[in-house]
Amino acid sequence: MADTNRGVVYQGPGEVTVEDLDFPRLELAEQNGRRLQHGVIVKVLATNICGSDQHMVRGRTTAPAGLTLGHEITGEVIETGRDVEFIKEGDLVSVPFNIACGRCRNCKERHTGVCENVNRERPGAAYGYVDMGGWHGGQARYAVVPYADFNLLKFPADRDTVMAKLPDLAMLSDILPTGYHGAYTAGVTTGSTVYVAGAGPVGLACATACLLLGAAVVIVGDMNEQRLAQAHGFGCETIDLSRHADVGEQIEQILGVPEVDAAVDCVGFEARGHGPDGGEQPATVLNTLMDITRAAGRVGIPGLYVTGDPGASDENARVGQLGLKIGLGWAKSESLATGQCPVMSYNRQLMMAILHDRVHVARNVNATVIPLDQAPEGYAEFDRGAARKYILDPHGLVGAAA
Amino acid sequence: MADTNRGVVYQGPGEVTVEDLDFPRLELAEQNGRRLQHGVIVKVLATNICGSDQHMVRGRTTAPAGLTLGHEITGEVIETGRDVEFIKEGDLVSVPFNIACGRCRNCKERHTGVCENVNRERPGAAYGYVDMGGWHGGQARYAVVPYADFNLLKFPADRDTVMAKLPDLAMLSDILPTGYHGAYTAGVTTGSTVYVAGAGPVGLACATACLLLGAAVVIVGDMNEQRLAQAHGFGCETIDLSRHADVGEQIEQILGVPEVDAAVDCVGFEARGHGPDGGEQPATVLNTLMDITRAAGRVGIPGLYVTGDPGASDENARVGQLGLKIGLGWAKSESLATGQCPVMSYNRQLMMAILHDRVHVARNVNATVIPLDQAPEGYAEFDRGAARKYILDPHGLVGAAA
Amino acid sequence: MADTNRGVVYQGPGEVTVEDLDFPRLELAEQNGRRLQHGVIVKVLATNICGSDQHMVRGRTTAPAGLTLGHEITGEVIETGRDVEFIKEGDLVSVPFNIACGRCRNCKERHTGVCENVNRERPGAAYGYVDMGGWHGGQARYAVVPYADFNLLKFPADRDTVMAKLPDLAMLSDILPTGYHGAYTAGVTTGSTVYVAGAGPVGLACATACLLLGAAVVIVGDMNEQRLAQAHGFGCETIDLSRHADVGEQIEQILGVPEVDAAVDCVGFEARGHGPDGGEQPATVLNTLMDITRAAGRVGIPGLYVTGDPGASDENARVGQLGLKIGLGWAKSESLATGQCPVMSYNRQLMMAILHDRVHVARNVNATVIPLDQAPEGYAEFDRGAARKYILDPHGLVGAAA
Amino acid sequence: MADTNRGVVYQGPGEVTVEDLDFPRLELAEQNGRRLQHGVIVKVLATNICGSDQHMVRGRTTAPAGLTLGHEITGEVIETGRDVEFIKEGDLVSVPFNIACGRCRNCKERHTGVCENVNRERPGAAYGYVDMGGWHGGQARYAVVPYADFNLLKFPADRDTVMAKLPDLAMLSDILPTGYHGAYTAGVTTGSTVYVAGAGPVGLACATACLLLGAAVVIVGDMNEQRLAQAHGFGCETIDLSRHADVGEQIEQILGVPEVDAAVDCVGFEARGHGPDGGEQPATVLNTLMDITRAAGRVGIPGLYVTGDPGASDENARVGQLGLKIGLGWAKSESLATGQCPVMSYNRQLMMAILHDRVHVARNVNATVIPLDQAPEGYAEFDRGAARKYILDPHGLVGAAA
Repeated sequence: MADTNRGVVYQGPGEVTVEDLDFPRLELAEQNGRRLQHGVIVKVLATNICGSDQHMVRGRTTAPAGLTLGHEITGEVIETGRDVEFIKEGDLVSVPFNIACGRCRNCKERHTGVCENVNRERPGAAYGYVDMGGWHGGQARYAVVPYADFNLLKFPADRDTVMAKLPDLAMLSDILPTGYHGAYTAGVTTGSTVYVAGAGPVGLACATACLLLGAAVVIVGDMNEQRLAQAHGFGCETIDLSRHADVGEQIEQILGVPEVDAAVDCVGFEARGHGPDGGEQPATVLNTLMDITRAAGRVGIPGLYVTGDPGASDENARVGQLGLKIGLGWAKSESLATGQCPVMSYNRQLMMAILHDRVHVARNVNATVIPLDQAPEGYAEFDRGAARKYILDPHGLVGAAA
Repeated sequence: MADTNRGVVYQGPGEVTVEDLDFPRLELAEQNGRRLQHGVIVKVLATNICGSDQHMVRGRTTAPAGLTLGHEITGEVIETGRDVEFIKEGDLVSVPFNIACGRCRNCKERHTGVCENVNRERPGAAYGYVDMGGWHGGQARYAVVPYADFNLLKFPADRDTVMAKLPDLAMLSDILPTGYHGAYTAGVTTGSTVYVAGAGPVGLACATACLLLGAAVVIVGDMNEQRLAQAHGFGCETIDLSRHADVGEQIEQILGVPEVDAAVDCVGFEARGHGPDGGEQPATVLNTLMDITRAAGRVGIPGLYVTGDPGASDENARVGQLGLKIGLGWAKSESLATGQCPVMSYNRQLMMAILHDRVHVARNVNATVIPLDQAPEGYAEFDRGAARKYILDPHGLVGAAA
Repeated sequence: MADTNRGVVYQGPGEVTVEDLDFPRLELAEQNGRRLQHGVIVKVLATNICGSDQHMVRGRTTAPAGLTLGHEITGEVIETGRDVEFIKEGDLVSVPFNIACGRCRNCKERHTGVCENVNRERPGAAYGYVDMGGWHGGQARYAVVPYADFNLLKFPADRDTVMAKLPDLAMLSDILPTGYHGAYTAGVTTGSTVYVAGAGPVGLACATACLLLGAAVVIVGDMNEQRLAQAHGFGCETIDLSRHADVGEQIEQILGVPEVDAAVDCVGFEARGHGPDGGEQPATVLNTLMDITRAAGRVGIPGLYVTGDPGASDENARVGQLGLKIGLGWAKSESLATGQCPVMSYNRQLMMAILHDRVHVARNVNATVIPLDQAPEGYAEFDRGAARKYILDPHGLVGAAA
Repeated sequence: MADTNRGVVYQGPGEVTVEDLDFPRLELAEQNGRRLQHGVIVKVLATNICGSDQHMVRGRTTAPAGLTLGHEITGEVIETGRDVEFIKEGDLVSVPFNIACGRCRNCKERHTGVCENVNRERPGAAYGYVDMGGWHGGQARYAVVPYADFNLLKFPADRDTVMAKLPDLAMLSDILPTGYHGAYTAGVTTGSTVYVAGAGPVGLACATACLLLGAAVVIVGDMNEQRLAQAHGFGCETIDLSRHADVGEQIEQILGVPEVDAAVDCVGFEARGHGPDGGEQPATVLNTLMDITRAAGRVGIPGLYVTGDPGASDENARVGQLGLKIGLGWAKSESLATGQCPVMSYNRQLMMAILHDRVHVARNVNATVIPLDQAPEGYAEFDRGAARKYILDPHGLVGAAA
């Protein structure tokens, strides 16, 4: 393989660089103490910057300097391990951000987000995190995918079709299934009224998923005017939380009642208080959602909550303990569903919806393709609140198609 | 009607008395501003003391002095309103503790615990609470049941069979469905390992339900030795929390792993810290359950959490805001299901299991029949931790059958 | 009440007339031996001709001459019985075609299509059938709706909005929920590939529902070119069964594989053999669907199958016994879901989707408003295969809005 | 490997013999054109005779002479392929009768009974069938299990415990999950009334599963007095179909109503007409079940229906087309669930129930251990209607424990 590898490396709070990396090798036989004959090497065609990466780059997690970032990978298989039977060289594939073995109890029960085998520390593995198995990040030219027959979603379409839809298909590795998971676990279905907290890429993907699920009204709340405009552009109602502190009141203006059928938290632990003066208040979103969800309703929580946040403002938050109004939620018989999306539960179906033009997620999240080497600028703009989802294009193959 | 009415009245923290009461009248035409032609009058054959009553009697809720207590009613219909079509005089019936109209969206969707019509303040009505519609309590000789065709479960058996099984059937109005709801929403099914927090009557009913649902191992934790002995007596494993603070460690001793498939909180907001020195720590149970439930598991929360607790030890707890380790629960992709049980979702099935001898809940909760006039002693003993479920017997008809 | 009543009456095979009828009276106190104080009188604003009516008019059921037809009613409440509490005069409402008591086990379990009380002969009641409780048909100026608080869906919008959307809202009484039920019980969801047998109004409503449920590809098969054109017009693929006998082959042309994820039978027992020479073959559709549904897939069967068909071509079909290729379905682990739609399980959600412009069912089924007195012409044209859904407009109020 | 292999071979209608067989070899590298590095060799500790084997031995399928029979395997892993990562030599395991790859869409969606990869002819593979992938049967001393990490269920207990419970654990490869699947897909749950057609081993396992699922009343129908006695012995009601043709009437004697909540067909296509004079009537069971299942009920159909039956009495039955009373089922809104059980969906849970003494399936099906070489006698007695489930014991290790 004459080509060289190169990827995005976390250098410490606020700084990422693009560095030369070793070319991934299956013949190394071992990664994290495991044989990789079940793995493949993928030439990365698209790899997106995610809000989870941002949490790390902001120094709000335990990620160490030197970590290769990235877990949203779409690519072409260029080498297969000896034990790979169904995936072939040349296959164009989506890589779920969670790495799963396909053989443990959780995988068999479709909980691939908490696979018991791939990460030996605790259930759940992913690319580009320090505490999820130690797997290399995917914001690079090439990446290794273990348990490839199980993990990979092969696109059942010719190369031209795939390349033309790559900005949409690239959202299958994480944010479209993640947004869908939030909506689905919140019970969003035909005719639902929904409140989506957060108009970042996951929030917009979630709003997209709500509409795909048949929601009657999708209301998106955020403090970023541009992101709200993006949501409004594809049919959502919006609430500007920088101007209104009382979400229920705003919902009532829209729906005639101050509650929705279902609510989804696409913000997570770096939440800020609503209204003009809000500082960071990590429980704000969860408490608001319990307040504005109707009795017997459900709250989906794909937004990240952590067990260790070195940057938190108080001692409890530093260990992930937040002051929740559980008495209120209980009085309303509400349910809460938390955790990372098991991408494999949804990605095939969502791929079908993309390939048959039922959903336009790239447009809705304002997917923006930039070269891999511009990743630092992408991170910076994203951190400043750009209403964009950045797709890194390591081989210069996506741009034309966008 | 020659008979007189008499019932249990809350007199203030720590005190209940049995008082003469007005005889209930349908012809009054109005209760809480509503016509009651859809109601019936029930001669109460059995009415149980519940942990929720205890919260009130301890002064830990907003219940006012003068309130007639009680929401667990089993009886015989002695008068029917003009609009009652299917329930007849002489029917022996179980009364779900939640009062539901059968006509609103929530009732149609089987969420009868949060009926929108019967309580005008907020969704959810019950007998004998001040903030759940203002309906009279059922710890009395006679009671009114509105929307009787919808609410009542008629026993499809002859009077002798019913009377013989009355201590079991009396548990259909609340604790057996409530325990079952906790187990069911926690995902308990064939082969599950389960941890039930609390060995009071609801905890024991929940453990009973877990076994009925096919659980492989049911572990019950409490600080009350007698109650644990009760649980052990019908096949549960037990953990004495007064001696062991680390629940996971104890679970590992039993199962070989420190986690269970499912967990149920049958304690609620008056929880105490585990171990020998624990004072009241309202979030202890919830945090423990998130800790000892396996990844992708679910936590059922039938135990009561309130929005107003005048007796709480800190300001947050007084409004029902507790410090929850949501970061931990999120990392494990756990789900939480809260709220009062919609009794009607389960009571017919559980009645069938009782009538056909598949479940012996009265034995498991140590049902103890006492005359109505001994209610104050029953409350006092229950408050002292008696491993008993007290059934009040207003007409002296149950005792013989127990 | 100065107005007079008038409605569509079945006169024998092939013939309906519009006749003067008695004005419905709640004060009669009895209909079918039941008090009707729980009922209301509805001024019928729209009432549609259904394929089920056609089966009767073709003499293919046991319907007797003299029967008032019609079960798809949308209207305004003009009188309420004494026991009606939540529905008020002036409410604009959709009437589910199934009549349900809201108090029996089946109703409580949401199976309102097989209510145990309203029809005393067997579970399941409807307006305008002889064997479903004997209730008067709704193709009339006025109609009685029993158990009104339970049965009626009140539109939560002002009169102008309702009247403007009446052709869509009129589909809530039957075909939109029925088509949705077929799709839903067949497992149609995000990304599904679906085959819908039949492009009559129910088939088109089902295809509409499939798209609302997020299906990737909806393929509609029929022998009627105009109806197929209608399906094609809103985004479906089509198969002309008069030209192609092998449905799997046609599906393969469209999808690349000869099977779909889910299939729905919107034809029922009057099915005809595929291909140019097909006579009536009542099992054709069901056998085709088992053939072209993928392994582990499901088949929804909202299309009517009867227990008595006097016009059937063979002895078995006359009693509803058909030759099914159950060995094939079994080898593929398929499931079949049959029966009338329990409208109340879906109508509120679908109403929300209509009111918020997520679905345009009137356009998709080519809703065509005609005066009540033109009902005979409507029946005749529908029987000739017009690609239209006829809405009768008894008071001349819909036309302008269509 | 010094040991030799030996197994049960089908010699033609009515005849099986035990023959020497080649020792299975992973190093052959190919079976059915596939690499087997993902496979293991299992020393068979128990392998049961199944009703499906009987269908073959009776000449009622397309099975050819020379086929090694058997698909119910429990054993010890003695050799692992190069790519097997989690299963180790010495593991004691249950082998699901369906062979699944763990990597195709159906496996990922838990439909392992219709795996798309292992059998290249059509979805679904199993050991010891000619048309399910051509895999060798397991009624032998040694067997090969492909995709071992995915397929095998490892017993989490020490060898003594496993050996002591081996007759129970041996039922995990097929009949306990199969019976459970039938009950589960029929909707059996707490308090259900159930009719199980057939008191052969699958019927008895299904009745066992119904009780484990919490059924209130389980009624088993058969024509074999001994088998009915077996069912009665563990708490079932019974109907002797050789004496009573009207099943509904008999159910009414037991329940007071002529219908059950759920029904399961554990007979399949070799059904005989009820009553004293019944010859073979392949649709009898299905039609009876639609008749005696209540409105909105479900029918589970684990009993085998085939697409080719050379021994059928009429032309339609020979291709698996049966005269079903679908009009009746439709009028009652019933659902039918067909197909082979996806064992992996249930076996871990059922194993937990066995290991913790919640279920005693070996006792209930009258498990009878015989040496491998007595397989011909076992087949013969089973065919004569012995109320036994025969476990072949190829290494003489089970007998002592039984």
